[in-house]
Amino acid sequence: MNILVIGDIVGRPGRKAIRELLPQIQKDYKIVFTIANAENAAGGRGLSREVMKELLSHNIDVLTMGNHVWDNKEILNFIDDEHRLIRPANYPPYCPGQGYHIYSAAFNQKIAVVNASGRVFLPSLDCPFRVVDEIVSEIQKESDLIIIDFHAEATSEKLAFAHFFDGRVAAVLGTHTHVQTADEKVLPGGTAYITDLGMTGPVDSILGMQKEQVIEKIIYQRPVRLEVAKGACQLQAVVLNFDEASCKCISINRISQELPA
Amino acid sequence: MNILVIGDIVGRPGRKAIRELLPQIQKDYKIVFTIANAENAAGGRGLSREVMKELLSHNIDVLTMGNHVWDNKEILNFIDDEHRLIRPANYPPYCPGQGYHIYSAAFNQKIAVVNASGRVFLPSLDCPFRVVDEIVSEIQKESDLIIIDFHAEATSEKLAFAHFFDGRVAAVLGTHTHVQTADEKVLPGGTAYITDLGMTGPVDSILGMQKEQVIEKIIYQRPVRLEVAKGACQLQAVVLNFDEASCKCISINRISQELPA
Amino acid sequence: MNILVIGDIVGRPGRKAIRELLPQIQKDYKIVFTIANAENAAGGRGLSREVMKELLSHNIDVLTMGNHVWDNKEILNFIDDEHRLIRPANYPPYCPGQGYHIYSAAFNQKIAVVNASGRVFLPSLDCPFRVVDEIVSEIQKESDLIIIDFHAEATSEKLAFAHFFDGRVAAVLGTHTHVQTADEKVLPGGTAYITDLGMTGPVDSILGMQKEQVIEKIIYQRPVRLEVAKGACQLQAVVLNFDEASCKCISINRISQELPA
Amino acid sequence: MNILVIGDIVGRPGRKAIRELLPQIQKDYKIVFTIANAENAAGGRGLSREVMKELLSHNIDVLTMGNHVWDNKEILNFIDDEHRLIRPANYPPYCPGQGYHIYSAAFNQKIAVVNASGRVFLPSLDCPFRVVDEIVSEIQKESDLIIIDFHAEATSEKLAFAHFFDGRVAAVLGTHTHVQTADEKVLPGGTAYITDLGMTGPVDSILGMQKEQVIEKIIYQRPVRLEVAKGACQLQAVVLNFDEASCKCISINRISQELPA
Ligand SMILES: [Fe+2]
Ligand SMILES: [Fe+2]
Ligand SMILES: [Fe+2]
Ligand SMILES: [Fe+2]
Ligand SMILES: [Fe+2]
Ligand SMILES: [Fe+2]
Ligand SMILES: [Fe+2]
Ligand SMILES: [Fe+2]
Repeated sequence: MNILVIGDIVGRPGRKAIRELLPQIQKDYKIVFTIANAENAAGGRGLSREVMKELLSHNIDVLTMGNHVWDNKEILNFIDDEHRLIRPANYPPYCPGQGYHIYSAAFNQKIAVVNASGRVFLPSLDCPFRVVDEIVSEIQKESDLIIIDFHAEATSEKLAFAHFFDGRVAAVLGTHTHVQTADEKVLPGGTAYITDLGMTGPVDSILGMQKEQVIEKIIYQRPVRLEVAKGACQLQAVVLNFDEASCKCISINRISQELPA
Repeated sequence: MNILVIGDIVGRPGRKAIRELLPQIQKDYKIVFTIANAENAAGGRGLSREVMKELLSHNIDVLTMGNHVWDNKEILNFIDDEHRLIRPANYPPYCPGQGYHIYSAAFNQKIAVVNASGRVFLPSLDCPFRVVDEIVSEIQKESDLIIIDFHAEATSEKLAFAHFFDGRVAAVLGTHTHVQTADEKVLPGGTAYITDLGMTGPVDSILGMQKEQVIEKIIYQRPVRLEVAKGACQLQAVVLNFDEASCKCISINRISQELPA
Repeated sequence: MNILVIGDIVGRPGRKAIRELLPQIQKDYKIVFTIANAENAAGGRGLSREVMKELLSHNIDVLTMGNHVWDNKEILNFIDDEHRLIRPANYPPYCPGQGYHIYSAAFNQKIAVVNASGRVFLPSLDCPFRVVDEIVSEIQKESDLIIIDFHAEATSEKLAFAHFFDGRVAAVLGTHTHVQTADEKVLPGGTAYITDLGMTGPVDSILGMQKEQVIEKIIYQRPVRLEVAKGACQLQAVVLNFDEASCKCISINRISQELPA
Repeated sequence: MNILVIGDIVGRPGRKAIRELLPQIQKDYKIVFTIANAENAAGGRGLSREVMKELLSHNIDVLTMGNHVWDNKEILNFIDDEHRLIRPANYPPYCPGQGYHIYSAAFNQKIAVVNASGRVFLPSLDCPFRVVDEIVSEIQKESDLIIIDFHAEATSEKLAFAHFFDGRVAAVLGTHTHVQTADEKVLPGGTAYITDLGMTGPVDSILGMQKEQVIEKIIYQRPVRLEVAKGACQLQAVVLNFDEASCKCISINRISQELPA
């Protein structure tokens, strides 16, 4: 049984990559369940209702978010209505939206997806180790497998998080840096891990945004409005292969496909 | 002509990986010049004279550093005496040590190696874009190729730096996060790039340090003395292939080799 | 009824200022209860058992802490044994020590003292607004007045915290920056406030530490071991005046006294 | 001879405080030269041409800026045309605007005003110690006195900066935290110093902005558009008294005046 988890989708080019590359990938890898990070899906910042609908219509089962979750204020209107959309579980409890959900997938598996955010160089949220520990304890019985999108900056925090949950969850998959790492593996306890899934969006860019603008922002140290870049797109993800009987993760493999402009 | 550039060497296990894996790699890949980041080579923090000698004795041509450069105060005694050791060029001008050097390699090439540090989530140094721009302008004529170890945390800063210098230098190779990225490529202008070379040190660790200690530090949010982990070691690096006549970079390939405990 | 709250005591000079200036201040201002921040009391970093005993022997009723609470590891041996010592309440719940305590003072008042830490530019703790909100709700009935030492860096976070609790607690007193602010006042809801109490320690210093060392650290951007400065000492604090019957805060007044070397 | 230096002017209420309080202050204190920080003067963020003209029309001689200098993009249109406007000198050299200027004041004194920004918890600019050191060396001969607006967050950096320049400049006056500190004094070398001048704007606010919005931003950890608060205004500043013959600073005194709503 194969599950696909897709790195941060950035703007229109990211959605184009989803539209044009995802069907074939799902077919080639016999994907039964697809998760994608959508925190940059609407114009590079947050998520709108239209963009959410568009992504869900392309056979994505769950959308996860990150530090950009509230950038598009429209989300406050629909985040509590869509169970296929989750945001970092460690935002304060009075924030709208949910941090995890249990889905029914093919073969009757119960797949729990949890979204959490790191705190190093990121907003001051509740401790993701404690919050997710409580969630995992609560849902472990009713879930066949638990997949966590851990949205974080620092490699140390991501690795610590994965080792902390190793053996208790099926996978800890990093997002946020938009650069795919080459360290995918199944940890000693059986949890699949990668530091970062990478980015689904324009190739010739800096994290999906126009290079010249990002460079200007850095060398002038002044605020610059960043816009999504154009041109060729990429889709980056991992395929998790699970044993259907035991729901143990057998392998994790990186995918990086490019779509010419 | 192949050049090897090795990711942050961490402590004794990292040096063991160098000792036992490097000779065969240099032979297999016909390496004519070897660069390695040594900011964590002595006990995980900085560099001592003994450790420097040990590394240079293993056929490493240049040692680069990073934000841990001053962690072992011993370095102040020898940093100005060893031209094979460079530290980030954008430390204040009155700091000891040098930020680049031009070396003579096989086939008579003049290989300039520059070390610089990013500023996002790192010490407040001089602007690496401006400092390196001046260095590159100055040494471009007398160098056949220029290789930059850009020691930085944020993927945006690393990518911006690489695109800023694309076409003017042979390679921009990221270090510091200790996690190898899967984005190695030759940029449009001809500069080889990878966001992070990875780490040369203990495999079962968090960035080379003992997992339990890093986890304790994070979940208690209190200072914990981190020690280098034990067990199986890895060596992570890239091989840069250059055309001997033009000194243009033809390809960049990742290496990740493991040495059982 | 007057309560004295003293800003961060730094090292030996800070303790000297306590020893030589506090008795007269307590007498002059008819102080019935004294609170002092002790996070820098032992050599500028943390607290030892000896130093704690010394401070408590000088007629201080409660010692509060801050981000340096764990710097002297000795504290793990005694923090759970001394009810007159509190540390920021928003450290993770499994940390040793307590975040508040209710004391019996002269005239039979029940004085609750709460210690909390801000999160802006400081360790990633639990949300101080939520944690203290729960504490205040819990202890409000059994306390005649509640005094909070809010240990934080950013003026915006400190002011936000004070306004959030205005009317529910007797006083929110900032610590951590070691510079006394001139904004002491009783807020509209009746809560006494000051952004920072200041520092009790060596006058000719940078936050209590030797000037040359701090300057070296900044201009070289390298780690420098900071030592407590010498010479003339100061004691900085506020006097809170309460109506004995209603336990309402009537006034807050700054104190800054100097002791020649 | 008295010089007035005014803390960050925030929005319309700040300008109202200038308009209604400044004339009397200038008269009462026999002010011959007035400097004011204007980084928040236009709607709380940056400076527009209209607002600049308005402030200069109220008998202010020099406007300084800070980290918000580029927030209102309009400034790019006029920053190079107005010598009475300066921005932090340690922005990259290719940024528009100037970091200091020498003005002719009453009694024929040449008053140099320098603006610089700290780097702790602020944008990664050039080292303010080195940049200002060069400026001071260059202008020392042609200036009768040099006044520095050091716009910084951390008290340690501000104190280090002041001690670094003590004896070489007339005054180092901190801005940016919007909370006036109670540590004004003439340092041993003769330089007048205060950690922060405070804020000129709405009293019932958090740093000039609406309290509820700042609190919402913190407790939800999400982006909130902050607006300037309303109601009673304050003007905060210091008066520097200089000996006319020697141009030595004799005293520094805080001012904090309130204007009812
Ligand atoms: Fe993202
Ligand atoms: Fe993100
Ligand atoms: Fe490193
Ligand atoms: Fe590093
Ligand atoms: Fe302190
Ligand atoms: Fe502190
Ligand atoms: Fe300001
Ligand atoms: Fe500012």
